[in-house]
Parts: sequence; structure tokens; C-alpha cells
Amino acid sequence: MEKTGGIMLGKYLEQVRSISPLVHNITNYVTVNDCANITLACGASPIMAEEYQEAAEITSICNALVINIGTLTKQTIPAMLAAGKKANDRGLPVVLDPVGIGASQLRTNTVIELLQQMHFTVIRGNVSEMKKVYQCYSKECKEDKGKREEIPASTRTDSSGHRGVDASVSDLISEETLEDTITLARALSKMADSVIVITGAIDIVAADDSVYVIRNGHPMMSKITGSGCMLTSLLGAFCGANAPYYPEACAAAVCAMGIAGEQAYRKTYERKEGTGAFRMYLIDAISTMQAEELNQRAQFELVEIDR
Amino acid sequence: MEKTGGIMLGKYLEQVRSISPLVHNITNYVTVNDCANITLACGASPIMAEEYQEAAEITSICNALVINIGTLTKQTIPAMLAAGKKANDRGLPVVLDPVGIGASQLRTNTVIELLQQMHFTVIRGNVSEMKKVYQCYSKECKEDKGKREEIPASTRTDSSGHRGVDASVSDLISEETLEDTITLARALSKMADSVIVITGAIDIVAADDSVYVIRNGHPMMSKITGSGCMLTSLLGAFCGANAPYYPEACAAAVCAMGIAGEQAYRKTYERKEGTGAFRMYLIDAISTMQAEELNQRAQFELVEIDR
Amino acid sequence: MEKTGGIMLGKYLEQVRSISPLVHNITNYVTVNDCANITLACGASPIMAEEYQEAAEITSICNALVINIGTLTKQTIPAMLAAGKKANDRGLPVVLDPVGIGASQLRTNTVIELLQQMHFTVIRGNVSEMKKVYQCYSKECKEDKGKREEIPASTRTDSSGHRGVDASVSDLISEETLEDTITLARALSKMADSVIVITGAIDIVAADDSVYVIRNGHPMMSKITGSGCMLTSLLGAFCGANAPYYPEACAAAVCAMGIAGEQAYRKTYERKEGTGAFRMYLIDAISTMQAEELNQRAQFELVEIDR
Repeated sequence: MEKTGGIMLGKYLEQVRSISPLVHNITNYVTVNDCANITLACGASPIMAEEYQEAAEITSICNALVINIGTLTKQTIPAMLAAGKKANDRGLPVVLDPVGIGASQLRTNTVIELLQQMHFTVIRGNVSEMKKVYQCYSKECKEDKGKREEIPASTRTDSSGHRGVDASVSDLISEETLEDTITLARALSKMADSVIVITGAIDIVAADDSVYVIRNGHPMMSKITGSGCMLTSLLGAFCGANAPYYPEACAAAVCAMGIAGEQAYRKTYERKEGTGAFRMYLIDAISTMQAEELNQRAQFELVEIDR
Repeated sequence: MEKTGGIMLGKYLEQVRSISPLVHNITNYVTVNDCANITLACGASPIMAEEYQEAAEITSICNALVINIGTLTKQTIPAMLAAGKKANDRGLPVVLDPVGIGASQLRTNTVIELLQQMHFTVIRGNVSEMKKVYQCYSKECKEDKGKREEIPASTRTDSSGHRGVDASVSDLISEETLEDTITLARALSKMADSVIVITGAIDIVAADDSVYVIRNGHPMMSKITGSGCMLTSLLGAFCGANAPYYPEACAAAVCAMGIAGEQAYRKTYERKEGTGAFRMYLIDAISTMQAEELNQRAQFELVEIDR
Repeated sequence: MEKTGGIMLGKYLEQVRSISPLVHNITNYVTVNDCANITLACGASPIMAEEYQEAAEITSICNALVINIGTLTKQTIPAMLAAGKKANDRGLPVVLDPVGIGASQLRTNTVIELLQQMHFTVIRGNVSEMKKVYQCYSKECKEDKGKREEIPASTRTDSSGHRGVDASVSDLISEETLEDTITLARALSKMADSVIVITGAIDIVAADDSVYVIRNGHPMMSKITGSGCMLTSLLGAFCGANAPYYPEACAAAVCAMGIAGEQAYRKTYERKEGTGAFRMYLIDAISTMQAEELNQRAQFELVEIDR
């Protein structure tokens, strides 16, 4: 796996540190502290606000918006809608994390409503979640079949094996399923007009005319809560500082998180510690990461797409 | 204190790692991240969802349900009821942590309502909380005096010394009060048809025909928030993977948590660190614990009961 | 900078450890776990409860109340009002943290309502937040101009540079702006009849007849979420144990937090770690801090005021 095109991602991290974007997160109460801390660690500044009465106003002073449905409630859904519309009006990047979509009708319907009422700059999830998002999109735009892409049969599989907030075993991204997952990501990217980030053993960042296939990270990242949520918050921070270079910004955030996972694992292993320490080292690694380090350790392949 | 009956608890931990049960937690926003991380650390998978509209549906895809009233609200109570009924319908284990019962009428009334509307497989709390649960049960089933057990005068003491979410000083389990606490646990177990877990300096797991008296753990566990909540989440994970061996699964979870507390204290002491590090080492210890280690370090006495 | 008057602050920490006050926190869901853990670390006991139906009742069993508007909602505002009135009725110390006041109309209006309906023993924020609180007070008591103090032009500057929950760059406390900030703090203290704690590179604790200028702390404290919230919870704990010596108790809490920041930074730097570790070491340092250490390392100047 070689880097393609000599692209260096470190400058997108530098830009976060230089601009220090303010990022509005409407997120879940399980991992909210980690999301705030990793946002600060990368150089941005988080603000969490989920009350409908202030949501749009808070968005209006920010550089980006992150919507994470991990523990959505009847109270937070209107706040997500109001904040999202404000962000769209102001041209701010908006990132969606459809946590556990498919685990309940409420989550699925909320994602459909969000997709109908606003445009997302980035959507990030595991394969099972993103298959479900694809289904939602297909349902949403059934009146508009022209937008619908054909995707391979393997990715059309109903995600019934999907377990709560985890990807189903049959949905893990491996070398065997990589091509199909890229096809899914590209189809979804085209339909939603969004950068699509699918994370797993291999991570994919798919945009209009390019796909990043990223091989950083470590399996221990799935042994703590919040690896996905933290990455989603990083995507908000990186996009907030790097408009309009969203695909590059997303690739940089995904590589940064993956490298942090590798470093955190190494420390945990050397010191014979466990997942509690791993979680701390992950945030440490983001807070001390240098642009040069990101340039050197990023393991990605950039596929240019003939259009 | 010797082990009785040659019972080995490690296999119940192995079963969690092998099955990886999905556990629905409706819990409090103070310790929810620690609860999710310790659930992952023991090998299970957590899902947090407290919106009424999805609560029962989420429970229906899970292997166990944990209800913790630590920061209950008007919004979360209906979710607890809906999820609990669904779990009962599906025969899933349900664990209750009546955090701070007695600190407010709302908490007490909510526990009474929960006890009336669903069956709990396990109820866990400190002595003050469990005395209050006993009172609630007595009140609830006042129409049905036949179910009521006589308990010693010392445990009938009103828990007015009870301080918020902590046990009152007069309620700490010591060698002197052990017998009375066991009597309380057994009476409550019979009334509620539940495994009763009372935690303190000595821990008790009481079921129909057996009582485990457990002497693992360290006082520093009471110097962080969440030791109790984390144990409750572990009880959910261990029961979710070990049906119908609930008393044994609870004893294994309590011993595992106690051993983790001992190991975390040792590390904290050696490295001259404080309660921040202790909390991390606690999760580390659960994530690295082996079945053999649990077998060897568990300090419990199993009292068989003549019926 | 020399200590003035030979005041020793360690005894106020000892008092917290000796009395172990129970502190009701109605706070935000981002940093609530850290707030609970640092409350325990200093020797107090936290209880979090934000449901209106139990808020006043929970306050009535406590020694102090902390209100933090970091993620306020329509549901939590009535709880704040009910708890605050109960605390006033019972003569308990009440601490306000107006997080992000000015970032939305809801936050500003909520602070105005809180200021109108209850008395705060202590108000803590950064300079931008405290300027906004001053504006709110001026607005609230516009019928009563006699109470209004003249403050220097520099501190009357509209805090439009105020970024979300952070102080605006022009609002950082430096040696140049110190005198004006002290004037603001004293004016606000007189208007609100509260101890005013303004935190930044230099911290100020202003009361009726004295001002503490405190030079402990480290810039890394602003690179994690919750440094401010944790200090606010410490203020609640220290006031709960040291009535009626509130200015001294606040100065002790601010110095303790600052010393903890210095120690945490030293460890983080020596071990080449990042902000994840820093956050843990901060709580460690509070949990292991001795009164003698607080006496020796506190860096403050006490300015007595001619009245």
C-alpha cells in the first residue's frame, strides 16, 4: 500500500491548531466528555448544547456542527433539526453520526427526517450503519429514482446481523469485502452529496471524485466506548478549519485517529495496562500529534475516480 | 475464610467473553461512560437508550437490561417501565440499582412502581439502600402479608442516617452486623424472588438457597464515583451471558470487581497516584482479568441454606 | 508576590475532609463525572439530581448547592430555581457557574432569572462570562440604580469577542488588565452580595472587604474540558464545609485547583504524556493534597480594602 499522489495530510491538522474552530456538538451522554476532550486535544474548541431553545443560536456562532444520535431523545431531535438548518443556511460543515441506526425505529426515522431536512457534509458510521443509511436514502428519494445508484448484492444484504451499536460480524471491512464497501460508499456519497466515512479494520473516505482507503488504527479501539464518536467530533473540527477541502480534512482526521490508536496500543501493551489506560493514551496521542508525524505515519491509498 | 464447595467462578467470566451479551443500560449521566467502558472491559457490549419511544425495542434486541435510578427524570421513568416489561416478557435478566433510594420521595416512589410492575432478577445496593427497598417491598405487598419475612430489629432501623447516595455510617457491613445483613438479604430475596447483592466492606449475594459472603475489594472504591454503578452494569453483563445461573454469575461479577479494586489500589499505591488513576486501573483490571485469576483470588464463603 | 497577613488556607481543606459535606450539583452532562470525582477527591460527597420533582428535596439533605448552566435545558431550569430557593431558605451556600452566558439568549435569560429569584454565595466564571453577569445584574436592578457601581471602560466592553464557553482573547486576565478586572469583581461582589471568583491566567476572589489575587495554575488547564466546572464543584464543597468563611474557603479551593494544575502539568511533562493524562493527574493531585502542601504552595496576595 503506497501513498498516492504525494498528498500530505499534516497541514489539515495544522490548520485546526491555527484556526481553532468552535464546534457545536449535539451528541450522546455516554461519550460526550471524550468528544469534548478530543476536540480540545486536536486544537479546536467544543460547545455542547442540545436544548431546542438555543440550538440554532449556538450553531450560528460556530464553525461546524456535529450531530450524533447515540442517545437521542424526543427533546434533542428538534434541536438537531434546528441546528442543522441553521448550519446549512450559514454554509457550515455538518457531520452526522447515525449511531445504532437500525437498532430502533426511532433512530431510523430520525435519520430519515434529518436526511430530508438538511444537507450533511460528512456522514460517518460502521458498515452496518452505512448500509442502513443507504436504505434510508433509497426510501427517502424513492420519488427520484434517477439519483439511485446500483450497489453490489453483498452490500444490499439486510443488516439484520447488526448488533445494537456494533457492526455485524458479516459486515466487517476486510480485504475481501473492500471493493463492495467502496462501491457502497461511492453510491451513498453520490446520493447524499456528502463525504462518506466508513470505519472498520480498514477505513474508507469517499467523495465525489476520490476515495481514500486508510489502513491505520488498532482493534483495541473497538474495546472502548467512544472511538467512533470521538472520530466524528474530530471530523467536525477538521472540516470546520479546512473548508472547502472536506475529503482531505476527513482523511486527515481518520488517519490521525488511527495513528493515535496505534500509539495508544503500543503504550498500553508495553506497560501491561488495559482499556482504561488505552482510552487515555488515545486522547494523549491526539493532543501531542505533530503535522510531520501525521504525514509520516498515515497509511492510505488515494483512488482517483474516472468520471 | 475458605472457599466452600470448590466452586470456581472464572467460567462465568469466560462465558461473558465467549457470548459477548448485548446489555441495555438505562442509567445515570454521572457514571454512564464508566458503565459502558466496564461493560466492554468484561467482554460484553453496552447499549444506552433512555427515550421511551425506543426503550422496549432496544431491550428486545438485548441479552439483559440494567436499570439504574441515579439521575432519574420524568422522561426516563416511562422508559424504565417499558424496557422492564419487555425484558420480563422475553425472559431476559433485569438488574436494578436503586441509587439514593430514600434521598427523595421521587426515588422511593419510582422504586415502588418498578417493583410493582416488573420482576427483577437482581437488585444491588448498599445496606441503607437495601433496607429502604425492603421497606418499599413491605409497603407494596401489604395486602399479601404471607410473603413478608421477619427481619432482626437492627435491620429494621429507619435509614434516617442514610446520606444521599452513600450508606449511613451505622449501616456499614462489618463482622458485627454481618449476620443481620445476611438475614435482611435473605428476607428480601424471598420477598422479591430476586438475587440480592448488598455491597460494602463485605459483600453479600443472597439467593433462594445460598448466600455468598465475599471479602474482596478495597476502601478506595468508595472514593470514586461509579464503583457501585459499574458493578451493577457488570451484573447485567454476567447475567446476560450466564442464564439461568444468576447467583453464581452475580458472585463472579462481585468478586471480579473486588479483585479489580485490590489490583487498582496496589498500582495506585506503588506509583503514589490518586483516585483519578485508581479509576482507570479499575477498568484496566477488568479488561485484563483472566478466568484463572478470578478463580484464584476470589475470597468468598458459600453458605448453603437448609430450607 | 507575597502572601499577605500570614493567612494559611490548608485548614479549609482539612475542614472539608473532616466534615465531608454533601453537595447537590445541578450541572452539565459534559463534565459531570469529573465534577463528581473531584468532589470526592477533596473529601466531600456529591449528589447529582436535576429532576424538578426531587430537586428541592435533595437540596434539603445537603450542605451546599452548585448550579452550572453548561448544558441547561427546559427541564433543568425549574429544578435549578426550586433547589436554589430551598438552599436560600435553609441558609446553605449556593455557587453559580454561568457557563457560556452570552452564547445564547436562553443562557443569558436563565442567569437573569436565577439572579432575580435567589441569592448566590459565590459566582464563578471567566472574565467574559463575568462581564456578562455584570450586564445582567445592571439590567435586573435597573430600577434600583443606587446599587450600581461604576466600572472602568475597559471592562464595560461588550463581550462580543466571547467565543462560546471560552473567554475572548481580549478578556484574558494579564498584569495589564488586572486592576480593571479587580474593579469589575468588586463591583459585582457588591451588587450581588456574593463572593466573586474570576478565573484565568491570574485568578481573583473578591468579597466585601478583601480581594485575593491568586497566581497558581497552568495553561494546560484550558486544554481539557471541565477545569472550570471542577473548580466550581470544589467551591461548593469548600463552602459547604466552611460556613461562614466563604471568601477564605473560595481562595483555598482556587489555590488547591491551581496547585493541582501545576503538579499535573509537571507529571505530564516529565512522562511526555498529553491532555488525557493531565486530566487524570489533576484529580489525583486533589485527592492526595495535604493541608500543609496547600499552605506552602499557595501563591496569593490578599488585598484588604478600605471601606
